[in-house]
Amino acid sequence: MAISGVMRPGHAQIRVLNLEEDVKFYRDVLGLKEMGRDKSGRVYLKAWDERDHHSVVLHQADRAGIDLFGFKVRDRATMDLLESNLHSFGVKTERVPAGEMLETGERVRFEIPTGHLIELYAEKKDVGNGLPYRSPAPWSPDADRGIAPTRLDHALLGGIDLDGARNVFIEALGFYLVESVVAEDGQTQIAVWLSCSNKTHDIALLRLPENGKLHHVSFWLDTWERVLRAGDIMSMNNVPVDIGPTRHGITRGATIYAFDRSGNRFETFSGGYIAYPDMQPLVWPIEHLPEGLDYPQRKLHETFLTVFS
Amino acid sequence: MAISGVMRPGHAQIRVLNLEEDVKFYRDVLGLKEMGRDKSGRVYLKAWDERDHHSVVLHQADRAGIDLFGFKVRDRATMDLLESNLHSFGVKTERVPAGEMLETGERVRFEIPTGHLIELYAEKKDVGNGLPYRSPAPWSPDADRGIAPTRLDHALLGGIDLDGARNVFIEALGFYLVESVVAEDGQTQIAVWLSCSNKTHDIALLRLPENGKLHHVSFWLDTWERVLRAGDIMSMNNVPVDIGPTRHGITRGATIYAFDRSGNRFETFSGGYIAYPDMQPLVWPIEHLPEGLDYPQRKLHETFLTVFS
Amino acid sequence: MAISGVMRPGHAQIRVLNLEEDVKFYRDVLGLKEMGRDKSGRVYLKAWDERDHHSVVLHQADRAGIDLFGFKVRDRATMDLLESNLHSFGVKTERVPAGEMLETGERVRFEIPTGHLIELYAEKKDVGNGLPYRSPAPWSPDADRGIAPTRLDHALLGGIDLDGARNVFIEALGFYLVESVVAEDGQTQIAVWLSCSNKTHDIALLRLPENGKLHHVSFWLDTWERVLRAGDIMSMNNVPVDIGPTRHGITRGATIYAFDRSGNRFETFSGGYIAYPDMQPLVWPIEHLPEGLDYPQRKLHETFLTVFS
Amino acid sequence: MAISGVMRPGHAQIRVLNLEEDVKFYRDVLGLKEMGRDKSGRVYLKAWDERDHHSVVLHQADRAGIDLFGFKVRDRATMDLLESNLHSFGVKTERVPAGEMLETGERVRFEIPTGHLIELYAEKKDVGNGLPYRSPAPWSPDADRGIAPTRLDHALLGGIDLDGARNVFIEALGFYLVESVVAEDGQTQIAVWLSCSNKTHDIALLRLPENGKLHHVSFWLDTWERVLRAGDIMSMNNVPVDIGPTRHGITRGATIYAFDRSGNRFETFSGGYIAYPDMQPLVWPIEHLPEGLDYPQRKLHETFLTVFS
Repeated sequence: MAISGVMRPGHAQIRVLNLEEDVKFYRDVLGLKEMGRDKSGRVYLKAWDERDHHSVVLHQADRAGIDLFGFKVRDRATMDLLESNLHSFGVKTERVPAGEMLETGERVRFEIPTGHLIELYAEKKDVGNGLPYRSPAPWSPDADRGIAPTRLDHALLGGIDLDGARNVFIEALGFYLVESVVAEDGQTQIAVWLSCSNKTHDIALLRLPENGKLHHVSFWLDTWERVLRAGDIMSMNNVPVDIGPTRHGITRGATIYAFDRSGNRFETFSGGYIAYPDMQPLVWPIEHLPEGLDYPQRKLHETFLTVFS
Repeated sequence: MAISGVMRPGHAQIRVLNLEEDVKFYRDVLGLKEMGRDKSGRVYLKAWDERDHHSVVLHQADRAGIDLFGFKVRDRATMDLLESNLHSFGVKTERVPAGEMLETGERVRFEIPTGHLIELYAEKKDVGNGLPYRSPAPWSPDADRGIAPTRLDHALLGGIDLDGARNVFIEALGFYLVESVVAEDGQTQIAVWLSCSNKTHDIALLRLPENGKLHHVSFWLDTWERVLRAGDIMSMNNVPVDIGPTRHGITRGATIYAFDRSGNRFETFSGGYIAYPDMQPLVWPIEHLPEGLDYPQRKLHETFLTVFS
Repeated sequence: MAISGVMRPGHAQIRVLNLEEDVKFYRDVLGLKEMGRDKSGRVYLKAWDERDHHSVVLHQADRAGIDLFGFKVRDRATMDLLESNLHSFGVKTERVPAGEMLETGERVRFEIPTGHLIELYAEKKDVGNGLPYRSPAPWSPDADRGIAPTRLDHALLGGIDLDGARNVFIEALGFYLVESVVAEDGQTQIAVWLSCSNKTHDIALLRLPENGKLHHVSFWLDTWERVLRAGDIMSMNNVPVDIGPTRHGITRGATIYAFDRSGNRFETFSGGYIAYPDMQPLVWPIEHLPEGLDYPQRKLHETFLTVFS
Repeated sequence: MAISGVMRPGHAQIRVLNLEEDVKFYRDVLGLKEMGRDKSGRVYLKAWDERDHHSVVLHQADRAGIDLFGFKVRDRATMDLLESNLHSFGVKTERVPAGEMLETGERVRFEIPTGHLIELYAEKKDVGNGLPYRSPAPWSPDADRGIAPTRLDHALLGGIDLDGARNVFIEALGFYLVESVVAEDGQTQIAVWLSCSNKTHDIALLRLPENGKLHHVSFWLDTWERVLRAGDIMSMNNVPVDIGPTRHGITRGATIYAFDRSGNRFETFSGGYIAYPDMQPLVWPIEHLPEGLDYPQRKLHETFLTVFS
């Protein structure tokens, strides 16, 4: 199979400080669709063009951050195989039973060396994107409700042992390195962009002095014009914008970074190039991080390396 | 590996009636970069953002059409494995020695049941995209020369035994079905869109009464605004436009179909959605082909089913 | 005053065959806002970003077409002066009393030599665009409802004595010629684009063998991406598209021509250049009308010169 | 005449510290076309779509800033009339003879109460925009050379007596107020946006403690995508970006502020709405200046009120 193994980011479980306020934010401002709640009180949402039951799970907590980030794999056999790879690589896993998350099959859960919980799963209910699977229109009315990303795109996670976490993704899970930022020594990676697809990244990792940190969860928009519209909607709703609209030099993507009601950074992202694993990875020496982050301004916004949840 | 097997369309060898005229067209109007000529007189070109040596090979002939369409695979072991799959599937292959095409390794060549020559190869020289691999700008000045697609995207090939050809791609080569047009009987596929990536298609097939036909070779543009610019440049250069600018219902992509100087149809294409193999394929009953082809106009342009090379 | 005299197209009164069906169309598909009905049964609508009470008036009739096209002038003194100009020019006028049209002051009405009723008025109630006049957001939620043009932009009217009608606009009303199509003799104007603003046209005229014809009423969209969205919405609602999306060579504008439920052609239009009266008018010899109409395709769509209401 | 009086900004004469360096900047980075030099060493440039001989004049000096900003008026009679208006208004004028500026007729020059020299002129040689006036293409190859604005759009000038300068433009020259920022007292205008056209501004004024200051000269781009491209080109050429890409709440326009090689701020601008003099002016209380300046970020960038030339 040309596309096999890990297919894509499938869900982010995010901690919020005031559940109803952030449900309102993710639904009415970001424009996700509320899909259900479970008995533990978690709220499930999806982006309009996703067909699986949910991609964002909100979870009331006393501090912001990310509980776990899950990837959908091709099928159950793939999940078993990847779990076996993880074991060979020395990563302990546990199985979370089907149904623990609404409409979701059994998951393989493990901690990566940066202290984040990652999950693999093969089954989540296809609830459709609101369009028929026969002769569909190119978009549904949901595309005009709020910022309305089409998809959960990726996350940037931060922690101490970037090398260890990177190796899990690359060597055990089949991701490939697309771009990286390297320190003055020309060797130490400060940040890596990893892909399991033709996107420029499905997961990115940042070397930080503390483990388990969330830099941002990213949502896909189709165009630069939609990024501008996202910025407008953020402002109309008093969403604190961190950086953008601008273009990243890294990945070439257009972006706005902003914060949800609990201080979790999220990104509305578009563009970039079509990536392939035979491409020589692009390298950004740390002194070029400013243009890697904000290409027009060539500016290393201070919050980028200091604010996390 | 998440991305393995066949990675992408790598080259189209196209027959043209007056080589120099079409070299000028592909270089100055379409905006490809001329990369070299071989002793048999073939001319090699690439799109600006491709890093491999070439993606279009022009070949003087007395009738227009496509000689062969090649795919780059992950590595030599993959090429061997896929060749073995092809043999198991009853497809005969031959090896074309390295160097027969400039800067290209050994290729596995075979004929699919629609009468087209398809190739697999693992090696082509990385000549770069004109940007450094350290801290690159998001685009090079080449992006403003002619229509300037970033990549060869896909081809639509036509022939009698669509089912047989489709099966080779899906069962032997690991492609997956993304969308299809089906006849009044609700079963017979008239056209299929097949992907080996997260693009909506890397190859498409059309059921035609004659074998070996080229419907179009497609080139990727980043935005709908670039599609408009492409249309302007076509008109400035008296390029006959067939259909567009418009949006396909099928794949959601924005498009213009036009003809090179020899009557080969090509497409400038942008957009569509991010495709995954677990998505239920979309089906267009033949009576909805009009909106599948030209979504705003809901019009089955007559040339679509009648003009080929 | 730099901007004085006639300011802009202010209303088009359009005949429809089935009032409620077209009210639904103009409101839910085109995305105008229904503003009221008068005792004669006319329905008033406005585009979201217009501040005056209405710009489209629908009128039940047994044949489609346009009753009248009105322009807002700077003030009452201007209206009096322009009426006096019209009289000097030999054009008879009548005064339509304030209130004959909802929320609209007295109008000066006259027939131009192509048989169309044109009106001038100075007063129409400012009902706002849904945004406050203090610190407004850049757009309101209405911008996402239907095609949602920001404004009525212009009309193209057809009749026998184009020269006479053109002279009324230019010599009595202060419009200027921006572009024209001329016949094989190099003199006779087949169509003219006239502006009273910095837009490429506020009124256009087409030489036709019959008087009083409506070619199209045009609505302004801000971007080419909104034009694509308009085409999508047309298709979703089975609106017959005539031409487009494409770019006019004439005015450089991006366009879709389509028909309302009664067969009146309308246009969703964007772009063009900033026009000034000191610019030498652009001339399109009739043999270049194809690219003037549809720049990418260089095609004279047959309906353009044959279908009117 | 609907459009009469002052038509548009026609030229800005800008002081630069190292002439050849800035000529290179305005020509190769901003993408203006060098049109000539006069015997006093001034260098003349124009934006590609302008038809008059020049719109930017560079002038070697020992401090940056603006020498003068000129407006083209409808004709010589208009120039005489406006000069008479200025005299009635108590503004002294002088006549600069034809030819003092290359290819430019006689100019009326005067100082406004903020200490800036403003000029009116009726004649400048039509050198064309590189496209024929018969059946032109929608753009020329010059549109792809550098940032390539289509036009000089406006300037923002700062000084002490904003009210006095505003009155000259409105009462003597026929401009109208489109938007303003007002102080805490709800009365005092901190900044005003004035139009002599259907653009949201042709001149803007800012209340500053020092006279004769240049905040920025602005150049028009057709789309938000061109604004992104402008930002890319700025970065590729190490142009210091001040703010953007972003959207102004004031005027709704998309923008990047950056600096030329001498520290003169310039803007690449697109969008906004179609303005008319009967529109109630929009008011931004000073506490809303942050979103007026940078709508997505709602941020009052400090340089906006502190950095000038």
